[in-house]
Amino acid sequence: MTFRASILTLYPEMFPGPLGHALAGRALEKELWALDAVQIRDFALDKHRSVDDTPAGGGPGMVMRADVLARAIDAVSPEGDLRPRLLMTPRGRPLTQARVRALAAGPGAVILCGRFEGVDERIVPARGLEEICVGDVVLSGGEVAALLLLDACVRLIPGVMGKAESGTEESFSAGLLEYPQYTRPQLFEGAPIPEVLVSGDHARIARWRQAQAQAVTRARRPDLLAPSPDRDGTMKERE
Amino acid sequence: MTFRASILTLYPEMFPGPLGHALAGRALEKELWALDAVQIRDFALDKHRSVDDTPAGGGPGMVMRADVLARAIDAVSPEGDLRPRLLMTPRGRPLTQARVRALAAGPGAVILCGRFEGVDERIVPARGLEEICVGDVVLSGGEVAALLLLDACVRLIPGVMGKAESGTEESFSAGLLEYPQYTRPQLFEGAPIPEVLVSGDHARIARWRQAQAQAVTRARRPDLLAPSPDRDGTMKERE
Repeated sequence: MTFRASILTLYPEMFPGPLGHALAGRALEKELWALDAVQIRDFALDKHRSVDDTPAGGGPGMVMRADVLARAIDAVSPEGDLRPRLLMTPRGRPLTQARVRALAAGPGAVILCGRFEGVDERIVPARGLEEICVGDVVLSGGEVAALLLLDACVRLIPGVMGKAESGTEESFSAGLLEYPQYTRPQLFEGAPIPEVLVSGDHARIARWRQAQAQAVTRARRPDLLAPSPDRDGTMKERE
Repeated sequence: MTFRASILTLYPEMFPGPLGHALAGRALEKELWALDAVQIRDFALDKHRSVDDTPAGGGPGMVMRADVLARAIDAVSPEGDLRPRLLMTPRGRPLTQARVRALAAGPGAVILCGRFEGVDERIVPARGLEEICVGDVVLSGGEVAALLLLDACVRLIPGVMGKAESGTEESFSAGLLEYPQYTRPQLFEGAPIPEVLVSGDHARIARWRQAQAQAVTRARRPDLLAPSPDRDGTMKERE
């Protein structure tokens, strides 16, 4: 079974984009995963190929029509398609590494990229869309968020990462940010590599790294260490 | 003053990528912003063009060398360059819409994209790098995160968004997720647009939308409503 991503977008020319290069690009060439980007406009119902209309109740911007989106989703993901259907939107639940891991272990994903003021809410229950947010920022559309989600997934597909990319000890995987890394030269602009790392004492190195990981996490992401009730489940997911 | 982004990467061919299309692409063409992607490998010190080496203290993967990165940064961002220097890394502080807004109002950014097991820690203080994380996931490199950051920034540059893209009422801008949107057709697969939105009663519509925004934020992102001490400052930044 190959991980297959189908993107529904007004800008199919954005794909594979950065995922056509480096690790993901080589894996795409080797057919370790597959990608198709589908133009939503092809499923419009009128000769003007309209995909959006003004918001009911007023307000700025345009909203993507549920009926057009339904036709696009049904064409790309007919009954029996087991892939989850994701909607990239700032209104969604934040993407986690646990969700990425689960997606990467599955058959792929159908990813709907919102634009403008978003999509007609009725499409969400009608097609069982899972709303996902990537970072607490507002984007021009869901496309770059979809690329980010896929970048995170693809590297976890078996056979994609070689030894050089490793991925055993990583930020979020163990619920902590990663410890700082150093490499040659021994002296950089007067700053040496911390003595412990060149001591050859593996137990001491391991203790130092654990302490550093704890410290950087406490300083930058205390939410990862002591999840408050409103972040319930976050740590569990990250385990 | 034009917003100018300089990307330091091992994969300059990934840029502008998706940002060469749609809103950001049109703005790039109109020179409302500028982008240059620089190959870090061009600043290697040996004939093999090495940019990385094994981690001091052992462990899997490779670490990007501080001396090579310093040369690349100094070439792209000489003294007097007022642009902030960002490092895209899962170890960073999470990107916020407030930071995006500040970046978009400034002269641009120098963005270093990490790969492998990250960069030699000593480059961070040596070149005053601001470590930024986009989403709690591990990527194959900082490139897609840089694209996401720029997508968020570029749309806020004056002149980039037209009326169609609006951007006045948006998720995160007011500390709440956005209310649900609806548009024609009035009936979609048996589901009507909520009655209130077609009532013509603007005060009632405004109250309904506010209540919906509160409800969806409470359900999905309670952290935005009641920041715990460990998320201190988040709400303030979002105001």
